[in-house]
Amino acid sequence: MTKPNKSHGRLSIGATLRPRELMTDTPRLAKTWTAKIVTLFPDAFPGVLGHSLIGKALKDGLWALETVDLRMFGEGKHKNVDDTPSGGGAGMVLRADVVGNALAFASHDAPKDRARWPVIYMSPRGKPMTQDMARRFADADGMTILCGRFEGVDERVLEHFDVEEVSLGDFVLTGGEIAAQALIDATVRLRPEVLGNEASTEEESFSNGLLEHPQYTRPAVWEGREIPEVLTSGHHGKIAEWRQEMSEELTKERRPDLWEAHEKQQKSK
Amino acid sequence: MTKPNKSHGRLSIGATLRPRELMTDTPRLAKTWTAKIVTLFPDAFPGVLGHSLIGKALKDGLWALETVDLRMFGEGKHKNVDDTPSGGGAGMVLRADVVGNALAFASHDAPKDRARWPVIYMSPRGKPMTQDMARRFADADGMTILCGRFEGVDERVLEHFDVEEVSLGDFVLTGGEIAAQALIDATVRLRPEVLGNEASTEEESFSNGLLEHPQYTRPAVWEGREIPEVLTSGHHGKIAEWRQEMSEELTKERRPDLWEAHEKQQKSK
Repeated sequence: MTKPNKSHGRLSIGATLRPRELMTDTPRLAKTWTAKIVTLFPDAFPGVLGHSLIGKALKDGLWALETVDLRMFGEGKHKNVDDTPSGGGAGMVLRADVVGNALAFASHDAPKDRARWPVIYMSPRGKPMTQDMARRFADADGMTILCGRFEGVDERVLEHFDVEEVSLGDFVLTGGEIAAQALIDATVRLRPEVLGNEASTEEESFSNGLLEHPQYTRPAVWEGREIPEVLTSGHHGKIAEWRQEMSEELTKERRPDLWEAHEKQQKSK
Repeated sequence: MTKPNKSHGRLSIGATLRPRELMTDTPRLAKTWTAKIVTLFPDAFPGVLGHSLIGKALKDGLWALETVDLRMFGEGKHKNVDDTPSGGGAGMVLRADVVGNALAFASHDAPKDRARWPVIYMSPRGKPMTQDMARRFADADGMTILCGRFEGVDERVLEHFDVEEVSLGDFVLTGGEIAAQALIDATVRLRPEVLGNEASTEEESFSNGLLEHPQYTRPAVWEGREIPEVLTSGHHGKIAEWRQEMSEELTKERRPDLWEAHEKQQKSK
């Protein structure tokens, strides 16, 4: 009888000595997909992500969001995070040591395997974000996102942490925070239970590589404009045909790049 | 003496009868670039746009932000904004009459000329957002952005209001709110005085059609990694050459599409 009691006692003490952080983080990480954001503007989160179905899913614990304030890792009295670029040039570069300490802090309880836990830097130098990328991130356990500012970040920290650079598109944003929210929104909506039935539908419309056909709903006439007759015909075959034609026309007109890829795919079938 | 007094009295009455909105809006619109957002989630604004230099510019009155709550224009007791798609299919479509009323309300004090005041719908069916597009919008007097949700919006309202569809990229977002914030951020930072000197620099790095070269800053050695020797050589010609080479390598590797366009441009010179 003594031995089991003693053992039980030891385990209890052990548990209370573990840092509180670890006690709360470990069970959460085992279950909940988590986005960790390293940013100079932690107050900008959750932002849009606190609203709508993504926000509801956050409140319901279907995913978790943590911010790491980059400023806290700054150097000196003024908590500097940046310095002038080596070799000259305008602007300021985020320091490798400062960003490195923030990323190390963010990663302390995350898997080291980048397939399970990608570490991402939002930057116009990155690979363009795609739906396939969002699917890959949704299948991971979570992700860490570094939001840049200024001229960029010291390249060494990107190499050292095996950081994946992701671009939202060929335009310049003031910082990575909006890009991070876009990436998180696109990813979290693919997680189980977040959207339920709604998700599958929207995916389908994207997966054939064409832009979606025009949509109509009541009223039948608005500002003298009628709903195309075929849609109210009740003839399912003709409706499907019309929608396919519209999708193809729209894709040809607006996205010759997608149309070319679509044609190649059709030929190889 | 009677006549002028009477006339003065009439004018005063006229002025007090004008809606307050018009009185305050007219002088503002003549000067300040304004983004008007039609959304089901007005509380999601300004979001990230309330922070950093863009947020400071908003507080300083260098640009203005107005939200129009789409729900206020909904039909019936439940303020419905959507209905099932004509011709069948999953999801819900935003109604032309509801969205039309909201857009008309948003447009009441905006120029009708779409070059001066574009009306934009954020949608994966749109033309991909680019830096040139942001420049064009920054040169306008302002813009109205419709944020979508669900399966889309009735096509007739897009035609009627000559709406420009803009896509953030080939991925699906839960709604247009984050995309709208990206578009506004990219646009507002190009407005005069918003960023000052910082803007020009970042533009340059994008305008040659190549991805930016790696950046480094102090410390000289971090985690055993040194800054490339050429950058600390002080030899400006060699530094420029090295940066150009790095830009080209990175573009070839990550963005064959940009590289191809860059090569075509070089040949045509």
